[in-house]
Amino acid sequence: MKLDRLVGERFKEKPSDCVVDSHALMVRGGYMKFVANGIYSSFMPLKRITKKIENIIRDEMDKIDGQEVQFPVVMPASLWEESGRYSSIDNSLCRFKDRNGSPMVLGMTHEEAAVQLVREYGNSYNRYPFMIYQIQTKFRDEARPRAGLIRVREFTMKDAYSFHTSQEDLEEYYDKCYKAYERIFARAGIPETIVVKSDSGMMGGSISHEYMLLTPIGEDSIAICPDCGYRANMEAAESIIKNTRDEASEELKMVHTPDMHTIEDVCKYLDAPSEKSLKAVVYQKNATDEYVIVFIRGDLDVNETKLTNFLGENIHPAVIDDECGIVAGFIGPVNMDAECKPLILFDSSVKDTNNMVCGANKADYHYTGLDMQRDLPDAEYHDFAKIRDGGICPNCGKETIVVSRGIEVGNIFQLGTKYTKSMNMTYLDEKGESHYPIMGCYGIGVGRLAASVCEAHHDEYGPVWPMSIAPWQVHLCCMRAADEATHEAADKMYEELQNAGLEVIYDDRKVSAGVMFSDADLLGVPVRVIVSPRNLKENVCEVVTRDKTVQEKVPVENTVEAVKKLVNELMEKCRPAE
Amino acid sequence: MKLDRLVGERFKEKPSDCVVDSHALMVRGGYMKFVANGIYSSFMPLKRITKKIENIIRDEMDKIDGQEVQFPVVMPASLWEESGRYSSIDNSLCRFKDRNGSPMVLGMTHEEAAVQLVREYGNSYNRYPFMIYQIQTKFRDEARPRAGLIRVREFTMKDAYSFHTSQEDLEEYYDKCYKAYERIFARAGIPETIVVKSDSGMMGGSISHEYMLLTPIGEDSIAICPDCGYRANMEAAESIIKNTRDEASEELKMVHTPDMHTIEDVCKYLDAPSEKSLKAVVYQKNATDEYVIVFIRGDLDVNETKLTNFLGENIHPAVIDDECGIVAGFIGPVNMDAECKPLILFDSSVKDTNNMVCGANKADYHYTGLDMQRDLPDAEYHDFAKIRDGGICPNCGKETIVVSRGIEVGNIFQLGTKYTKSMNMTYLDEKGESHYPIMGCYGIGVGRLAASVCEAHHDEYGPVWPMSIAPWQVHLCCMRAADEATHEAADKMYEELQNAGLEVIYDDRKVSAGVMFSDADLLGVPVRVIVSPRNLKENVCEVVTRDKTVQEKVPVENTVEAVKKLVNELMEKCRPAE
Repeated sequence: MKLDRLVGERFKEKPSDCVVDSHALMVRGGYMKFVANGIYSSFMPLKRITKKIENIIRDEMDKIDGQEVQFPVVMPASLWEESGRYSSIDNSLCRFKDRNGSPMVLGMTHEEAAVQLVREYGNSYNRYPFMIYQIQTKFRDEARPRAGLIRVREFTMKDAYSFHTSQEDLEEYYDKCYKAYERIFARAGIPETIVVKSDSGMMGGSISHEYMLLTPIGEDSIAICPDCGYRANMEAAESIIKNTRDEASEELKMVHTPDMHTIEDVCKYLDAPSEKSLKAVVYQKNATDEYVIVFIRGDLDVNETKLTNFLGENIHPAVIDDECGIVAGFIGPVNMDAECKPLILFDSSVKDTNNMVCGANKADYHYTGLDMQRDLPDAEYHDFAKIRDGGICPNCGKETIVVSRGIEVGNIFQLGTKYTKSMNMTYLDEKGESHYPIMGCYGIGVGRLAASVCEAHHDEYGPVWPMSIAPWQVHLCCMRAADEATHEAADKMYEELQNAGLEVIYDDRKVSAGVMFSDADLLGVPVRVIVSPRNLKENVCEVVTRDKTVQEKVPVENTVEAVKKLVNELMEKCRPAE
Repeated sequence: MKLDRLVGERFKEKPSDCVVDSHALMVRGGYMKFVANGIYSSFMPLKRITKKIENIIRDEMDKIDGQEVQFPVVMPASLWEESGRYSSIDNSLCRFKDRNGSPMVLGMTHEEAAVQLVREYGNSYNRYPFMIYQIQTKFRDEARPRAGLIRVREFTMKDAYSFHTSQEDLEEYYDKCYKAYERIFARAGIPETIVVKSDSGMMGGSISHEYMLLTPIGEDSIAICPDCGYRANMEAAESIIKNTRDEASEELKMVHTPDMHTIEDVCKYLDAPSEKSLKAVVYQKNATDEYVIVFIRGDLDVNETKLTNFLGENIHPAVIDDECGIVAGFIGPVNMDAECKPLILFDSSVKDTNNMVCGANKADYHYTGLDMQRDLPDAEYHDFAKIRDGGICPNCGKETIVVSRGIEVGNIFQLGTKYTKSMNMTYLDEKGESHYPIMGCYGIGVGRLAASVCEAHHDEYGPVWPMSIAPWQVHLCCMRAADEATHEAADKMYEELQNAGLEVIYDDRKVSAGVMFSDADLLGVPVRVIVSPRNLKENVCEVVTRDKTVQEKVPVENTVEAVKKLVNELMEKCRPAE
């Protein structure tokens, strides 16, 4: 491919709407173009990258006996009504009517379609286990698309679905897929990806893991214990708090706390540490607007995912008006008799505590001396708190937790029978008894993976693509292309590199070295070969890697061999550990 | 791949909803499953076929300097408003609103997206010509999906868009693509595909061609001259009629024709041949309901595509009520003064005719002796007629036309500046003057192509896939798998065939020969290898082609070589003529 024919523009200026490097570089490098919020077109370089990623994924899925199939993008709503998700998923599920008025949806995930495809096939135990997967366009009407390909509305995804007759069999397969994913990320150039326990969210099921690339621009927070290796998405990480209880309990006493609406103000005023206070966080259920108050230790925050999972329904921060009877800023668990009859919940962090400060449900008043055991003996406690930096590791019990940011590049779920049961897929076992098969599902976003690799491997001038997914393997530069002898030598090198089976992008434009190299940096091809009048005088070509770890002059006649060797070495770097 | 692990069911009974063979066989063979009207999921065998087809297409597109890109499935309506198609296309364009209420469409074709992608890049003449293409899911909300994958709502399509600075350059590229398409269809196993001139329809532009696989189940009618090679879609074929004019013109005379509402009845009653009559065909414009009457020779039919193109707007058969003043069954061009003021049009077939019968615009009366020259001297004539079997060839002038049915497997269009103009894409030429680039576009439906190949190559037992796109190359059957020695020999053969780089599906189920062979027939793999106790006694394997043209016994130790040779020979058959 000659660079002067490559469709797409490269430019220097950072686009103002790009907040992360991968986005800015991929726009500047002519990889992608904005079409609508969270919707992009891809130019050839990105298409070449994603095709290579898809082939790596395909290869690893085939190795664990996956069968590639294809589900529709547009599905009848009736299929999603079977599973119950047509009503349970919010408006990120795109719903519309076809010309006949039939309600349809755009696939954002394909559990329903997978069950529909194999419902009849999977009617006998001897057909299990099996796994089907597809690589297909999906649409998720995200409220806040951001960061280029990191969070989009339309995306290409590999989604796989496995079917089993026992939990043991699912776990065995889950483990295979777990390892296949590790190989995929290593082959795509980010072996540093870590696996963390995650929350299963709208997918249902219990056990699930996410593959995270740690980076400050990540959207997820991950709790890591460097000591024992514990890793979990903050949404799923158990918060363990050592509660302190003073020897003697003071009396419960109402105190005047005028105009103090936050627990910080009150603690300061009363000279109490925030750990000795109860903070009230108020939500409402989406479906019914019912109020939910969580009491949590003043220095901690509520993990809304844990709360949603506990309630089994979606919530939003409460709108507190006069009618509901809740006295905002002065909410406490004692004598709480608001007219709206809120659901009262307690986080484990306040269990057995005493001498606590809390609201008195009366404007400008708080209580001191609250003793949970004495004053609220019937309280039940659950884990609703966010784990914190320096918090206790749920695995080894040390105070070692580090919270980092990460991009989720893949996920795997043990789904159980959620979909087979709701969609009535059954098989007969050896005794002729009917059961619901157990499912697993396994996803990787292709575009997000490409962007993540770019985040992990770039400098200020452009991406530094790993050899395995680079748009081309070799970037050939002809310096001073107006010089006939040089141009001829470069043309010859182009032909020879191609004949050696290498993927070459060839820049023979009559442009300055500055333009030529900045374009090459933006394309991020791992190996660069420079033919120039000066080099030719010495009968050499310069061979340079994009990351500058190799910079050598090679005799012209040995260049093709040297480049082949280098390409192979760089490819070896993308081989997963055995 | 072992057949007993292949997800999908095969069965004998023809599904009642399948009207064409390819559909029935692909459902019976476990290739596809119905999800909703015109929407299917694909099992692994079909996915393997379509991937091979896609790779053939990709290879040929790359050879003519195409650059693979990707456009979105979901696009903002604003993009389609730019081209004007948001309002001009009927409800086959799927429109909906996203979560923010922004109007969106599902891509049924991507001219708008292509222009949007390269609008800035293509700002200078020296960047031309270029071609970009994608292989992507499309959705067209067809009113009447039918015949399985022949006419669906959701489909995978290769769509390509070329951009040029002159008509000559477009034509040169168009010709390259024309030939690339011939190679694609030959490589996919249907070299018999013919190219016909077509109507450009909603795409705009003037010259366009369709690639047609002739088959009685086709949806299109094609006019072919076996003598000179002229070929055109009936929608686009010019109808040439030799008008006869009698020496003497009779007088125009009103005659009583009671209760005769069709031109056939009247001609019979008056003992006139239908060629001596004017038939009135009445339409209404979709937008305004304005009436349009076409007068055409009694023995001919109106080609509605020609009429639509002439009018520049869509039409539907008229509803004739009392108010419009048209006397149904007795409509004629003389003294036509219906209140609705219809637009009167004449087909070339009645030009210069005399002694014609026509309606008298009065119930139960017709005229005889109509002389077009004398009675309607101001009439203008246009070609609105359908070409007929035995009609005159527009190219060589002989009465040789044969009308056949065909499936459109691909199409190519010269679009002109329709999209670049409406979407304001311009480039500066060498003199610094601004112009609109000229476009071509080129489509192939991948699933329809697979189904068409199946239509062309099948027998009553299943598809007979060409080697180039077959789901597997070799189908290995182990007869009497319960016999240990046979099973071992077959296992060994399976390993050796795979080691030789062949794609093998291996059936070692303990089932009858009948079940085994009917399943093999349904999968349509071109080469079958049979290992059986009887064969092993003779130290041979049976090697049979799906089409039975090769049936031989080969010594076990030579089988792999013989199969490799046969696979290569069958692959050669899919090589396009030079």
